[in-house]
Amino acid sequence: MNPRLPFRFVSAMTLVTSLAATLPARADEGMWLYEDPPRQILRERYNFDLTPGWLEHLMKSSVRFNSGGSGSFVSADGLVLSNHHVGADALQKVGTAEHDYLREGFYARTEKEEIRCVDLELNVLQSVEDVTSRVNAAVAPGLGAEEAALARRKIIAEIEKESRERTGLRSNVTTLYQGGRYHLYRFKRYTDVRLVFAPEQQIAFFGGDPDNFEFPRYDLDVCLFRVYEDGKPVHPEHHLTWSKDGTHDGDLTFVSGHPGRTSRLLTVAELEYLRDVSFPYTLNRLKRLESLLRSWSERSGENARRAKDELFGVQNSRKARDGGMAGLADPVLMGRKAAAEKQFKERLAAAGKYPEALAAYEQLVAAQKAIGAQALRLRLLESGHGFNSESFGIARTLLRAGDERPKPNGERLPEFSDANRESLELDLFSDRPVHEDLEMLQMADALTFLGEQLGFTDPLVQKVLAGQSPRARAAALIQGTKVREVAYRRKLYDGGAAAVAASGDPMVELAKIVDAEARAARKAVEAQEELKHQAQAAIARARFELEGAGQYPDATFTLRLAFGRVMGYEENGRTVPPFTTFAGLYERNAQMKNLPPFDLPPRWLKKKSALNLRTPYNFINTADIIGGNSGSPVVNRAGEFVGIIFDGNIQSLVLDFAYDDVQARALSVDSRGILEALDKVYGVGELVRELKTGHRRK
Amino acid sequence: MNPRLPFRFVSAMTLVTSLAATLPARADEGMWLYEDPPRQILRERYNFDLTPGWLEHLMKSSVRFNSGGSGSFVSADGLVLSNHHVGADALQKVGTAEHDYLREGFYARTEKEEIRCVDLELNVLQSVEDVTSRVNAAVAPGLGAEEAALARRKIIAEIEKESRERTGLRSNVTTLYQGGRYHLYRFKRYTDVRLVFAPEQQIAFFGGDPDNFEFPRYDLDVCLFRVYEDGKPVHPEHHLTWSKDGTHDGDLTFVSGHPGRTSRLLTVAELEYLRDVSFPYTLNRLKRLESLLRSWSERSGENARRAKDELFGVQNSRKARDGGMAGLADPVLMGRKAAAEKQFKERLAAAGKYPEALAAYEQLVAAQKAIGAQALRLRLLESGHGFNSESFGIARTLLRAGDERPKPNGERLPEFSDANRESLELDLFSDRPVHEDLEMLQMADALTFLGEQLGFTDPLVQKVLAGQSPRARAAALIQGTKVREVAYRRKLYDGGAAAVAASGDPMVELAKIVDAEARAARKAVEAQEELKHQAQAAIARARFELEGAGQYPDATFTLRLAFGRVMGYEENGRTVPPFTTFAGLYERNAQMKNLPPFDLPPRWLKKKSALNLRTPYNFINTADIIGGNSGSPVVNRAGEFVGIIFDGNIQSLVLDFAYDDVQARALSVDSRGILEALDKVYGVGELVRELKTGHRRK
Repeated sequence: MNPRLPFRFVSAMTLVTSLAATLPARADEGMWLYEDPPRQILRERYNFDLTPGWLEHLMKSSVRFNSGGSGSFVSADGLVLSNHHVGADALQKVGTAEHDYLREGFYARTEKEEIRCVDLELNVLQSVEDVTSRVNAAVAPGLGAEEAALARRKIIAEIEKESRERTGLRSNVTTLYQGGRYHLYRFKRYTDVRLVFAPEQQIAFFGGDPDNFEFPRYDLDVCLFRVYEDGKPVHPEHHLTWSKDGTHDGDLTFVSGHPGRTSRLLTVAELEYLRDVSFPYTLNRLKRLESLLRSWSERSGENARRAKDELFGVQNSRKARDGGMAGLADPVLMGRKAAAEKQFKERLAAAGKYPEALAAYEQLVAAQKAIGAQALRLRLLESGHGFNSESFGIARTLLRAGDERPKPNGERLPEFSDANRESLELDLFSDRPVHEDLEMLQMADALTFLGEQLGFTDPLVQKVLAGQSPRARAAALIQGTKVREVAYRRKLYDGGAAAVAASGDPMVELAKIVDAEARAARKAVEAQEELKHQAQAAIARARFELEGAGQYPDATFTLRLAFGRVMGYEENGRTVPPFTTFAGLYERNAQMKNLPPFDLPPRWLKKKSALNLRTPYNFINTADIIGGNSGSPVVNRAGEFVGIIFDGNIQSLVLDFAYDDVQARALSVDSRGILEALDKVYGVGELVRELKTGHRRK
Repeated sequence: MNPRLPFRFVSAMTLVTSLAATLPARADEGMWLYEDPPRQILRERYNFDLTPGWLEHLMKSSVRFNSGGSGSFVSADGLVLSNHHVGADALQKVGTAEHDYLREGFYARTEKEEIRCVDLELNVLQSVEDVTSRVNAAVAPGLGAEEAALARRKIIAEIEKESRERTGLRSNVTTLYQGGRYHLYRFKRYTDVRLVFAPEQQIAFFGGDPDNFEFPRYDLDVCLFRVYEDGKPVHPEHHLTWSKDGTHDGDLTFVSGHPGRTSRLLTVAELEYLRDVSFPYTLNRLKRLESLLRSWSERSGENARRAKDELFGVQNSRKARDGGMAGLADPVLMGRKAAAEKQFKERLAAAGKYPEALAAYEQLVAAQKAIGAQALRLRLLESGHGFNSESFGIARTLLRAGDERPKPNGERLPEFSDANRESLELDLFSDRPVHEDLEMLQMADALTFLGEQLGFTDPLVQKVLAGQSPRARAAALIQGTKVREVAYRRKLYDGGAAAVAASGDPMVELAKIVDAEARAARKAVEAQEELKHQAQAAIARARFELEGAGQYPDATFTLRLAFGRVMGYEENGRTVPPFTTFAGLYERNAQMKNLPPFDLPPRWLKKKSALNLRTPYNFINTADIIGGNSGSPVVNRAGEFVGIIFDGNIQSLVLDFAYDDVQARALSVDSRGILEALDKVYGVGELVRELKTGHRRK
């Protein structure tokens, strides 16, 4: 994952997770749990006291975008700030052939002009509870892997449902330390989110894919929403105050957000699996999608609009994965990992009382191997890579909803549990636009990919293609299905399995053809994941005993606290300073001849002379972030807003596997740059006033 | 292969070749041998008599661009016309950071201003001789595969050398019908080729990758050279006369050019291999390169210039292969192939006297399987996909030249045979620019690809990487090698194996590390190819007996004659007319807002009113073409020039496997459009006069 990528929900069974050789936290490393913050480190390193009040204020000001990013309340009247690229999905969905808000930008002068987002859900963390012992107690020792997985799923669903009923809050149990701990997170949930302001994508993503993950940078990657409840703007208990003078070189800063996923605690065997199997597969697929979407986009402006958000996500992931692959392919990084693992195992052996933890390493190797044998079918059939279309996804949700909903809560696939029902339905009945032509393009390619990967003579592939070419089959399915009509979806969902079975919808029929094998692959992998959880729990117990607490778990798209200094770095013998300015923006624009993606919106060309060109625009710090942190507020010692995370530099892409502060940096938009642009370029004085005072004018 | 792609020399061992179920020639099908032209078909279908004189005139006016394309003499003073994209490589090589002729275009007002191309070789076919019996006689029955391959290589080298010495002409034995026939081709060879005129790439490749392989089209894809000998323009025996009034809807036209490779005669087993192994590998690699080169190009204008030609080739191949894959993945096309093969086998069985031919099908399956087992190492190590850089290619040529040149002519790798010496040295000592940064980029990616494909723990991969990351290793190799200096290359080449061994050049050392395994893979595959040739020869003998002559062999980048009518087609219920005009060009430009790659060069915007907008610009016909035909002259019944092939439409991409005339079309630039543009937009009256009269002004 990476900051530019709105972190997308990882499917229930991540392919590789494990607790293993942690390297000792060093420098500004760490994506710390709010419930176990780095008090001592901050005191020793920065002479800073983390008080409970300071923490609670930042926690309750922080917002999770369930579409895959972070944000924060920045006014007492419900204003939420995030990245433009986090909001892109929402902007795209409210756009039309006439109004491409993603491209043109948007501003609502009045409450009335604010546009409600189609299916955006925001969460604000309210409380955390350690439920490890309750979860583990429910999984009897000696159970088979499948039974154990089921028992664990059941107790988790039970805890979540109970909490939801008792508190009315969204409640999710999260697996930490790859199985070492289970924490119950409770969130306030907002679904009436309205668009207030977005700049043109040209300036939000100035430099596009070429400058993505690079620094120096010049992006106004911001987007403002207002959160409503009962038809009125909310007045959140906490919101961040806008800093009067921003941050400066060397300052200590904090980042509060939702890093999606890291892989730092993996065993060497698991890292090798990523390097040899998982990353090559993913990169092959991403570059294929990139080529497909780019070619299609370039045929017309309307194509480009339709595919823009998808293409952005693909390119961004591709660049991030290429960076990750560079780390995995580096014998130096891998050597460090191997050495640390060896050292820890020796420590376990020397202590003489951890036979389980030592055996766990072997169990992880075996489980990883078993997962590897299922991985391809899992991704193609269960993750849907072989059908890549919204229509297929919807059809399958309808099919499975019919099968799952009659079951007891604890026995359902987790996405159909009571705790997830509201989010599921929000998504399923969303009236977001789905474009038939883009669907056909992507599905035809996905069916070809399916044939290539499993073989065109594979019996299931032959059933899927039904004697047609991938192009012809995709066209027939996409044109023949009715699942893109919300009313039809409601009918099948409400009608349950009987209605689904009677529908005869060709896409639902396809989902049926695939479902047994898809479920089988998932079940097999989940059983192995359970074995891994058990093994990892054994290692975690030993580690906590030997090394004490003071570790942070891998990222899980739950709220974390990171910290770091504002700081430049050395690259190819020259110093990269920590701040850029508007002057630099205009220079880069001129250098690239104002050609896309380095072109400026007309108003930026016109308003140049109005701007103070020396205003800090983007800056970097050493905070430990990853994808999902996009939109995270950056605050100073006083807890005031000084910037917003929107990316990492190219050197930060190995942060997936190990923290580094030599060159790796987190990129932010500077709070001063935001105000200057809103004021001088966009002339949105009301908004500037609300940000400065924390209140909108009555 | 495809027309847009300058056909690149296929390495000595094509991975799949075979003679199998030919489908009967239908409609305007066929890439016919000049030595066995479709006289009867043309008489019956078009009432046209192919006379020897007409054929010889067209043959000797036709020019092969050894960089991978076709062209023709169009004046008695040595003017040769080809496509801009065929000339792109040459344009790129003579360009500098100050003058990007590929982008800006070029015009030499005087002889003196003409720029000599760095390493371009043109060939004009002079005569053909059937040497099948001599080749086969030299391969004793009962020889093992390796010995047989060696014996065949030896006799071929002998025939070529003998012919070269006797006639002074470039002499190459070509394998036709996948081993059914061997023909000796003799060419006049020109290496002093000078650039005369090229339009801006913007207009030559208007619409870029998005409109590539599409129709309607609006491309001025032409480039003019002048051929010199002994420092003076040549006066070729034959050149094409420019037609006074061009061609019209329904007209019979001929295409004379060098289609690179087709796969129409493959057995079903071989096609399945392409579908299941070969194409997926190639597409994975191409999309990976496309992503890499595009990202890099977009970082700066200079990057873009350096990578442009390479990127164009990659995108073009990718689109062509995607089209081919669509054919292979189509059960209907594959079903037709299977039915035809079954039918022919039944005919063989019924005749009762072809046990060898029937057994040959099984032998082909076995050989294909054996080739498949070597294919990955062959491509990565021998074809160089694992090192993707000019520097590695040069280093390996130097290493091998040292080893091969002392051997007897017939025992060398064919690229080092006496017959190929001049071409090899032209290429090796070419002073073309090789960019260090681009080399590092590509090689780092290739080394990563190597690791992914063979596994990072493969012993050879570990030797190649030498404990470094792919990026670090590529940087060290590319920066450390001296092979990009021509003088250094000469020194090692002249010094032979001893000088090479003493050099200690890191890239040469790398080539040495790889060479044993690369040669082993090649040897193993060539042995299997020999078995295939033998099997295919058996099938070919039976076919010639059962079906007579009147077949054409798969394309081999040797001169072929195709024919077809100028004709539109139906698509999605609407008629696509056969001609476009300049008016259409300006419409598409306006529709795409003059943004790249739909932008027009300034002079095209300025001169719009000077142009007759109704002038035919591009047109289509049903002629049977493929990559390598780029630049082929299109002539009318009188043998006069009416257009120049530059592409096929998207429906033509399955022509690799089977001819089709329902929608598949060849695309040409119209002779009238060329003159109108040269005259009105470029104001190059002298050139227009030379094309019209066939002579330059004295």
